[in-house]
Amino acid sequence: MRNVRLTLCYEGTDFAGWQRQPGKRTVQEVVELALAQLLGERVRLLAGGRTDAGVHALGQVANFRTHSNRSPEILFRALNATLPPDVRVLQVDEVPLAFHATYDARQKLYRYVFHDGSVTYPWLRRFVAQARQRLDVEPMSEGARWLCGTHDFSSFETFGAQRASSVRTIRRLAVFRSRYGLLWEREPLDEKTEARADGDFVYLEVMADGFLYNMVRAIAGTLYNVGRGFWPPSVVREILEAKDRRRAGPTAPACGLYLVKVWYEDLSDGAPPLDFPT
Amino acid sequence: MRNVRLTLCYEGTDFAGWQRQPGKRTVQEVVELALAQLLGERVRLLAGGRTDAGVHALGQVANFRTHSNRSPEILFRALNATLPPDVRVLQVDEVPLAFHATYDARQKLYRYVFHDGSVTYPWLRRFVAQARQRLDVEPMSEGARWLCGTHDFSSFETFGAQRASSVRTIRRLAVFRSRYGLLWEREPLDEKTEARADGDFVYLEVMADGFLYNMVRAIAGTLYNVGRGFWPPSVVREILEAKDRRRAGPTAPACGLYLVKVWYEDLSDGAPPLDFPT
Repeated sequence: MRNVRLTLCYEGTDFAGWQRQPGKRTVQEVVELALAQLLGERVRLLAGGRTDAGVHALGQVANFRTHSNRSPEILFRALNATLPPDVRVLQVDEVPLAFHATYDARQKLYRYVFHDGSVTYPWLRRFVAQARQRLDVEPMSEGARWLCGTHDFSSFETFGAQRASSVRTIRRLAVFRSRYGLLWEREPLDEKTEARADGDFVYLEVMADGFLYNMVRAIAGTLYNVGRGFWPPSVVREILEAKDRRRAGPTAPACGLYLVKVWYEDLSDGAPPLDFPT
Repeated sequence: MRNVRLTLCYEGTDFAGWQRQPGKRTVQEVVELALAQLLGERVRLLAGGRTDAGVHALGQVANFRTHSNRSPEILFRALNATLPPDVRVLQVDEVPLAFHATYDARQKLYRYVFHDGSVTYPWLRRFVAQARQRLDVEPMSEGARWLCGTHDFSSFETFGAQRASSVRTIRRLAVFRSRYGLLWEREPLDEKTEARADGDFVYLEVMADGFLYNMVRAIAGTLYNVGRGFWPPSVVREILEAKDRRRAGPTAPACGLYLVKVWYEDLSDGAPPLDFPT
């Protein structure tokens, strides 16, 4: 028995999310079908982050156990030859049997992209959320600061989810304006870079030890209301303290959201989470 | 009677090109239908460059004559509210009655984008041509130099086209490697910019007074053969001198091609063509 880890990217547009659902096209099903075809056995994929319908992934991580002895290199080529073009395998590694992509995830990075130029360019329509007015990044950053650290994020959790705890720790919540070309970077963006001083894109990057259902999109919808001047930044604190989803902003559209990267403690993947600059 | 100029962008993927064709979805038809709906009269659009099926446009120019007295601002908003999301209006201007978007075009800029990374990312598949191997930019640039200037480009004209002359003047043919984010720039790219020193994208930019049918794609297919080491750069000169389409490389895929900008002498649009650095 071997344990194999996949690093995957996909365009979420035509997927009903990661997780298998009867009668729907999901990433899990598409990749599991490709693996079954290649390995001659059914496998079960475990994911680092279960992305929702329409959400994109730049560096999703998933693992499966198999009796097959195909090398990672062969699997990499065969999978990309088999999978549909909206999902690609970026890396295949053999990992210790105990590795579990869901439970062992230590930090995850999500990116949310608003476009607030006057025209929604055709090539952007699947990849950004179009803002209806210009966003002011300063108050958004100010509001975002209330969310950093360890909090009960009930106000940013979509109703219906069942979790043992709504407490999570956000290590970093950056809001910055940028020019395009950065949508698909598979590493955290540095808001200080010169090229990002202007442009029609507003990026949110949220790095945390875990996320509640629709949490990033609820944060994005809330900061959107701050950015368009509907709420002052201090409202974010009130929302957080209310622990009531109805107080926060709307769930921002799925097409603006990216699962960028998942960090694991034991499998080195560049810097381990705790060395990551906050 | 008024003459109105539109600056348009579109994603070519789902269009059978610019020009009206029975039973096919074309940009001309889609925009003419939207205009008829708004103006209450049928108008005929004339285009700066008649892009082919699948080819994108960042700054297509088209004009039409109308009896309507709607302001450019109203037309801009109403058109973008009416048009499908894969075509957008960037600008609407009133121009002198004599202006003709096709005949008055003085210079046109096309961009061709190859991606030669090992994985075709899902979000790129509609917007680049995927190279099967790494391209060497130096010999491509060397080959490109033979094409600059005034030549008979018969070797780069798809069979079947009828033109008075196959002589055109290429002012600039730049080949350079880059990181992404530049695909959709609506101005000529500067290959000297630092950010473009590495990356998995190879850009071709061709600026000329006119283009033969499939000319940029034939040039791209030829330089691709040079970049992958199949031909030495000097073959480009032999191909040009042969005046025989069969000697040149294949027609590169439509999805890698962009009509970037059209310059007109009399309607100032930044620098006039002759001041443009070659």
